[in-house]
Amino acid sequence: MRIKMIVEYDGTDFHGFQRQPSQRTVDQTLEEAVYKVTGQECRILGAGRTDAGVHALGQVVAFDTGSGMPPERFARALNGCLPPDVAVISSELANDTFHPRFDARAKTYRYQIYCGQSGYTLMRRAAWQVNDPLNIADLHEAMACLIGTNDYRAFMASGSDVTDCVRTISDFTVRMEEQCYLFEITANGFLYHMVRNLIGTLVPIGRGLLPPESMAEILESGDRRNAGPTAPACGLCLMRVFY
Amino acid sequence: MRIKMIVEYDGTDFHGFQRQPSQRTVDQTLEEAVYKVTGQECRILGAGRTDAGVHALGQVVAFDTGSGMPPERFARALNGCLPPDVAVISSELANDTFHPRFDARAKTYRYQIYCGQSGYTLMRRAAWQVNDPLNIADLHEAMACLIGTNDYRAFMASGSDVTDCVRTISDFTVRMEEQCYLFEITANGFLYHMVRNLIGTLVPIGRGLLPPESMAEILESGDRRNAGPTAPACGLCLMRVFY
Repeated sequence: MRIKMIVEYDGTDFHGFQRQPSQRTVDQTLEEAVYKVTGQECRILGAGRTDAGVHALGQVVAFDTGSGMPPERFARALNGCLPPDVAVISSELANDTFHPRFDARAKTYRYQIYCGQSGYTLMRRAAWQVNDPLNIADLHEAMACLIGTNDYRAFMASGSDVTDCVRTISDFTVRMEEQCYLFEITANGFLYHMVRNLIGTLVPIGRGLLPPESMAEILESGDRRNAGPTAPACGLCLMRVFY
Repeated sequence: MRIKMIVEYDGTDFHGFQRQPSQRTVDQTLEEAVYKVTGQECRILGAGRTDAGVHALGQVVAFDTGSGMPPERFARALNGCLPPDVAVISSELANDTFHPRFDARAKTYRYQIYCGQSGYTLMRRAAWQVNDPLNIADLHEAMACLIGTNDYRAFMASGSDVTDCVRTISDFTVRMEEQCYLFEITANGFLYHMVRNLIGTLVPIGRGLLPPESMAEILESGDRRNAGPTAPACGLCLMRVFY
């Protein structure tokens, strides 16, 4: 039977979600926990292959098991042998053909920027620190042109071999909470480093170094060199996967 | 000259504030940074000797230096060679007789309890997770009797050799923020483990396992065995020192 689980993790001490030789990864950590619980090896599939340092509060994973354990029990059983930086929030029976990545209709990511003179030490694992305040109105103006169906190749990491760069961003918001700017973006798919490159381009606009209109020009140019630097992984978190 | 600094740290990976043989402590980490910056050894004095795992956003420290560096510059210079889990927020010239601990009139600590089905993985270093919701009205009722000048020996860790256990709690509040209960307590002094023992006694009251009136009885009994267990260090944070 196939089990579907919602998983959260602090990505700081992982070399990303996906298995790499002799590195600590989220999938391998989950596979080892399943082995401890069931005595059987399994292969964990994830909805988003988050990079090193990227977090998740709503990652979706699936695996097949011949264990007789009721599907709902896996969450608690696995939490009993997982390290403190990964937790299973829920587990349930899935359709035999369910694939967390290929079946995903959309995903929501959050990007957190900390802007304060003090307090970052306790936030540093889950936020990027930017010293200057950002102008929210300018951010909104710049973000408006990004919503919809567009070719986002200007925000794709160079070196990616993806050729179809058209995606649909259905929602992209920013709000201030205490001393954090919280960006939330929902799209039917993301190019490699797309969220981090969008944030790296928005920050100079929010700081007033670039006009909000420049975002539309960068998008249309389709040229990665026109966009800003890649924002650090620590601010990024996979929040939800839609099926 | 004597320098006074406001310091913050994530206490998770420290064996407390105060120097211990072959352990990583906050004072030693700061002393090493001062040595790197000035080439001179110094002794760091702190306002609160926080335990292993306890955090600070407003610790106050002082040290003497013969360095000619302007006092305000120390903050930035030290941050250049401190690890990411400690930061100096500000530095200034202090009176030669200033002592961060003996001169403190009062301190404020925060205790953070996380109560949510999900999300704790990213909060686990700075909050204690309690699964059941707490009744805020019952907490307020129980906390009321604690405010004022009392003998708090019922909340002092056994083994402490302090004999005068009279302290004045000038403020003790709790509020809910997102999925966290935030307790803030201000007193002219704290007994060993006092905040954590107060929290460990309040939680069963908030969960309805003990009536709010029991707090007054525990306080009056002066007997540690009547109070609750010591809440974990990770939820505690030194917020501010008053002079």
